[in-house]
Amino acid sequence: VTDELAEAAKARLPRAVWDFAAGGAGAEHTLAANRAAFDRVTLVPRILAGTVPDPATRLLGTGMTMPVAVAPIAYLRMYHPDGDLAVVAAARRAGVPFTAAMLGSHAIEDVRPDWFQLYWPHDRGLMLDLVRRAEQAGCSALVVTVDMPVMARRDRDVRNRFTLPDGVTAANLVPAGRARDGGTVAAHTNALFDPAVSWADLDWLRSRTDLPIALKGVLDPRDATRALAAGADALVVSNHGGRQLDGAVPAIAALPGIREAVGERAQILLDSGVRGGLDVVRALALGADGVLIGRPLVWGLSVGGTDGAAHVLGSLRDELCEVMALTGCATVRDARALSTVRT
Amino acid sequence: VTDELAEAAKARLPRAVWDFAAGGAGAEHTLAANRAAFDRVTLVPRILAGTVPDPATRLLGTGMTMPVAVAPIAYLRMYHPDGDLAVVAAARRAGVPFTAAMLGSHAIEDVRPDWFQLYWPHDRGLMLDLVRRAEQAGCSALVVTVDMPVMARRDRDVRNRFTLPDGVTAANLVPAGRARDGGTVAAHTNALFDPAVSWADLDWLRSRTDLPIALKGVLDPRDATRALAAGADALVVSNHGGRQLDGAVPAIAALPGIREAVGERAQILLDSGVRGGLDVVRALALGADGVLIGRPLVWGLSVGGTDGAAHVLGSLRDELCEVMALTGCATVRDARALSTVRT
Amino acid sequence: VTDELAEAAKARLPRAVWDFAAGGAGAEHTLAANRAAFDRVTLVPRILAGTVPDPATRLLGTGMTMPVAVAPIAYLRMYHPDGDLAVVAAARRAGVPFTAAMLGSHAIEDVRPDWFQLYWPHDRGLMLDLVRRAEQAGCSALVVTVDMPVMARRDRDVRNRFTLPDGVTAANLVPAGRARDGGTVAAHTNALFDPAVSWADLDWLRSRTDLPIALKGVLDPRDATRALAAGADALVVSNHGGRQLDGAVPAIAALPGIREAVGERAQILLDSGVRGGLDVVRALALGADGVLIGRPLVWGLSVGGTDGAAHVLGSLRDELCEVMALTGCATVRDARALSTVRT
Amino acid sequence: VTDELAEAAKARLPRAVWDFAAGGAGAEHTLAANRAAFDRVTLVPRILAGTVPDPATRLLGTGMTMPVAVAPIAYLRMYHPDGDLAVVAAARRAGVPFTAAMLGSHAIEDVRPDWFQLYWPHDRGLMLDLVRRAEQAGCSALVVTVDMPVMARRDRDVRNRFTLPDGVTAANLVPAGRARDGGTVAAHTNALFDPAVSWADLDWLRSRTDLPIALKGVLDPRDATRALAAGADALVVSNHGGRQLDGAVPAIAALPGIREAVGERAQILLDSGVRGGLDVVRALALGADGVLIGRPLVWGLSVGGTDGAAHVLGSLRDELCEVMALTGCATVRDARALSTVRT
Repeated sequence: VTDELAEAAKARLPRAVWDFAAGGAGAEHTLAANRAAFDRVTLVPRILAGTVPDPATRLLGTGMTMPVAVAPIAYLRMYHPDGDLAVVAAARRAGVPFTAAMLGSHAIEDVRPDWFQLYWPHDRGLMLDLVRRAEQAGCSALVVTVDMPVMARRDRDVRNRFTLPDGVTAANLVPAGRARDGGTVAAHTNALFDPAVSWADLDWLRSRTDLPIALKGVLDPRDATRALAAGADALVVSNHGGRQLDGAVPAIAALPGIREAVGERAQILLDSGVRGGLDVVRALALGADGVLIGRPLVWGLSVGGTDGAAHVLGSLRDELCEVMALTGCATVRDARALSTVRT
Repeated sequence: VTDELAEAAKARLPRAVWDFAAGGAGAEHTLAANRAAFDRVTLVPRILAGTVPDPATRLLGTGMTMPVAVAPIAYLRMYHPDGDLAVVAAARRAGVPFTAAMLGSHAIEDVRPDWFQLYWPHDRGLMLDLVRRAEQAGCSALVVTVDMPVMARRDRDVRNRFTLPDGVTAANLVPAGRARDGGTVAAHTNALFDPAVSWADLDWLRSRTDLPIALKGVLDPRDATRALAAGADALVVSNHGGRQLDGAVPAIAALPGIREAVGERAQILLDSGVRGGLDVVRALALGADGVLIGRPLVWGLSVGGTDGAAHVLGSLRDELCEVMALTGCATVRDARALSTVRT
Repeated sequence: VTDELAEAAKARLPRAVWDFAAGGAGAEHTLAANRAAFDRVTLVPRILAGTVPDPATRLLGTGMTMPVAVAPIAYLRMYHPDGDLAVVAAARRAGVPFTAAMLGSHAIEDVRPDWFQLYWPHDRGLMLDLVRRAEQAGCSALVVTVDMPVMARRDRDVRNRFTLPDGVTAANLVPAGRARDGGTVAAHTNALFDPAVSWADLDWLRSRTDLPIALKGVLDPRDATRALAAGADALVVSNHGGRQLDGAVPAIAALPGIREAVGERAQILLDSGVRGGLDVVRALALGADGVLIGRPLVWGLSVGGTDGAAHVLGSLRDELCEVMALTGCATVRDARALSTVRT
Repeated sequence: VTDELAEAAKARLPRAVWDFAAGGAGAEHTLAANRAAFDRVTLVPRILAGTVPDPATRLLGTGMTMPVAVAPIAYLRMYHPDGDLAVVAAARRAGVPFTAAMLGSHAIEDVRPDWFQLYWPHDRGLMLDLVRRAEQAGCSALVVTVDMPVMARRDRDVRNRFTLPDGVTAANLVPAGRARDGGTVAAHTNALFDPAVSWADLDWLRSRTDLPIALKGVLDPRDATRALAAGADALVVSNHGGRQLDGAVPAIAALPGIREAVGERAQILLDSGVRGGLDVVRALALGADGVLIGRPLVWGLSVGGTDGAAHVLGSLRDELCEVMALTGCATVRDARALSTVRT
């Protein structure tokens, strides 16, 4: 289904917008490696589970119908006029959390997301202001991205001299006069972000909010351990969907080592390459408590707005329930106990 | 030979029927992985065996000319008017057991199979009734399938809106008025089967019959051990020929771990991907006592009825004897002692 | 060079003769796997060897200019009127041993080979007669093939209904009236050979001759050990060039285990897949004392008779010396101490 | 970028010159394997580094802006009239060391390189003379190549009957009357070089100069250890860019074992297959202190002289800084502590 949906989205979007969403960094080795790594993971089903599956779970303190949350995605209005509003509505309908992106194209007060994602702007006052707005908008967790000290070169965007379409802005930054029109996304981003963000900065953030913090972009077990010591509540194992370091380890390949390092002391989400219900169970079996999903929702949004995005989440849940039934898993916990064999 | 036979069958069958038989679940990754896993297994021949091979053996208490039994195959009349009757005749001619499928298209009383396969219908009275009929029809073992709590989505069938051809029914269920015409096979199957079948159900079945039970669809060594404790007499390591969980471990890759778990306490049959005599020896070398064969018999049946199916079994035996001769194996026991090297 | 030579030979030979020589058993998986296994072996060169290489060595008591002997090849007259006589002359010119095949197309008394190869005919009197003739013709060793209890089905030959060309016979068997005209090679071979040859037969042979015996077709370390105990003087690790068990382990992959099993108690030759000087050093580094070479000589013979075959051996020696120089090996012993890395 | 640059250079150079530079030995298995081995290495990024990267380092006592030096490249005037002079100027501009090749096409006194590369000519007086000239020209280290006792057959050059273009000579050898016009490069080289160079020769060289010696072409850990004992100050792990032993281990695959053998007792440079900043970090993570880069500079030189070569080095530094930022590395030392995962 996803392949056909992606094709439909490609047909509908301007080429440069499609390339921005579908593409990855550099020669896109990591983009491809993420999928290849998933496809090498085979599952060893269990039998006679004695029940029909229920994938409901709780991540970062949020209850949800399945172990899937919407990944933070910048500039959703590029794909459909309703942008974040469409996707958050789809997430509500499906009963899964929506993570608003700091570079979202609708203001957090309009979106009222479950979780809010932060980068590290030079201006820490801006950052703190966003944290306060997220708290006041009812967000129950922060997803703090740490894999973008600089924005990686993305050859497609360079070739396309990609700039944001008219009318699409980083809406959360507008009131503060910090969103710019014109210029490439890369230039904008690199001007805004602090390339020298440090563990001390995480300490600072930790001291400024009581919201749970999920650190997004952790791939090395040494960082996983340190993140917990620094007060992170959860980890998102991610290579930014192949959009940052081209040459990075596939996120799914890094997952078991991260789980081994942190044990059950923290929840772990897996991001980068999830395309269907089978991938969700693969991630659970390899140590994740849940996953983030991004691009498929962009395709659904592009093709059908809220309904399109909701269809993606509904299909994902159907697939997930089928895979859980066929692997004899009644619950997410059962899925985490599945064995895998790498082919 | 099998490739040519498959092509001949494909040319002869309606496309949707071919797709139903040849296809697998989802994107057919597991269907392909089953074959790829076989092809990576190379055998280390022995020399100076001092005899010509004799592959005769005994499985589930049944003597046979080679360690091969006919897998349970639903709705054989789709492929040839003589359906199960043709294949059971071919099996008799070849001296191998025929397993009648619960969803067979001829009644068990007409087929009089060696072994009888059961799914888990919601209606346990129906199930018990089938067990009794199998006993009375002279079956000497039950093959109880546990990898279909639900029927997996098979994209080809969905695309083809596949329904049973006119006149093909689940004949064993007709007297009880439980076979339906119309509707897709998937809908029929999912309505009939209990998705919440449990180990307690196996205990119940075990207490209701003295026939040996082979549990079909075991892939995890933990389940293998538990199955023996629950009174299963034999195990069939199978991923349902790639027709259930797409993403499942190849059966041949799961086999060594199952053998290691059960030792020689139970016989193990290997199902899913066997295409020729070489594959039989590969399976034996990796720990199987014998194999089930399905699709090649469907091709033989489609092309030539009883003679076609018998030709498949005859060729298989010729190939098996050649491989045993070339690997210095006088008996099945010798084949089980062969070393393998994965390339 | 070999690829071009093979193309030239293919252009010159009748298609069925080319197929007989170039082809392998079954679907030719092993034929291809032999080459793939070589190509995965990379060498770790040594430096500052302090000398130019000299590949001279001694195998089965025979001195030679390089660790290469001519493999036994049946029916060489199919490729050139001078057949065995051309190739033995080329071997003399190159200073390497020629192994006459039992099914050679010239009589052993005319060829006067260094070594003589034996299969196991039903008629042991015939076999003993051949041993005596080999001794009297000055052979210094016997190469006893044990991987052909039956001749494997070779699909190309079946398709071509391959029979020996007019005038080509198993010349060594003619005086005894045992060579047949007509019929396929496979039928002829299977009628002639004893499919039930045993270790007791090897004991019998060992007791009937003082010539060193190299057992050809050993792939399992258990057989290697037993062969030495039975009085074999050397082992030829071989899968018959992919012409017998399709699905057999590549010979080069089996080699290290054989060497580990026998230590330095016996010489080991590697056969099956050697195409150039690099392959010779790969085999040495993985434990061989030398190699047998077959098909490249057939191509050389086909294209240019004695000169063609001598050119192949000359090129092989040039390549071998280059590889030894570039890996810092002064001698065969140095090459055996090279490390390899599998890619 | 490099692929496009290579295409531009190919379009501009005579085919035989392109082939000489781009090609490798034999069937070019090692040439391809070098790249394939790099591409299998994925990096595990670190987070929250707290600084922007500075790749400055010091190799062989020479300070440089990044851990990259120009590899010795023979006959640079084939690619551009300014030859070595253009590339040394580019290296100066980029702040990295230039290694002049013994077979350079400009005299060392004109180039005044940072480091000087030596082969082992038969005439040790010539060699000593070159060492003195290097010392007097201000070179601070010698790079002594030990992987060319003979020059490997390079099929492209043989096919092209490659000879040096008019006016291109081994300028360092001209005053001594030792450079020859005409004849193939291979013939010239093999006549000039001593194929029997030994560890004793290294002792001799070590006793004749106080310059640091980096031994280039080390792939076996046993040689690495011995080289240090013989007074080598650094090692260059290299398979000569796939131009010597076709079938050699990829240099990047040999690197970890070399580092393990020598610990931190010596600096290790990696040569063979480096194409971009990602490759530099891969090499560092696997144990190198720095890398040599060759062919990309030839393409840059061919297309744009000094500016072209400088552009290559500038791009390389930009890529390196981006990869370091994205892997959370402030310094070369941090990069050496990165984990890698082989896919």
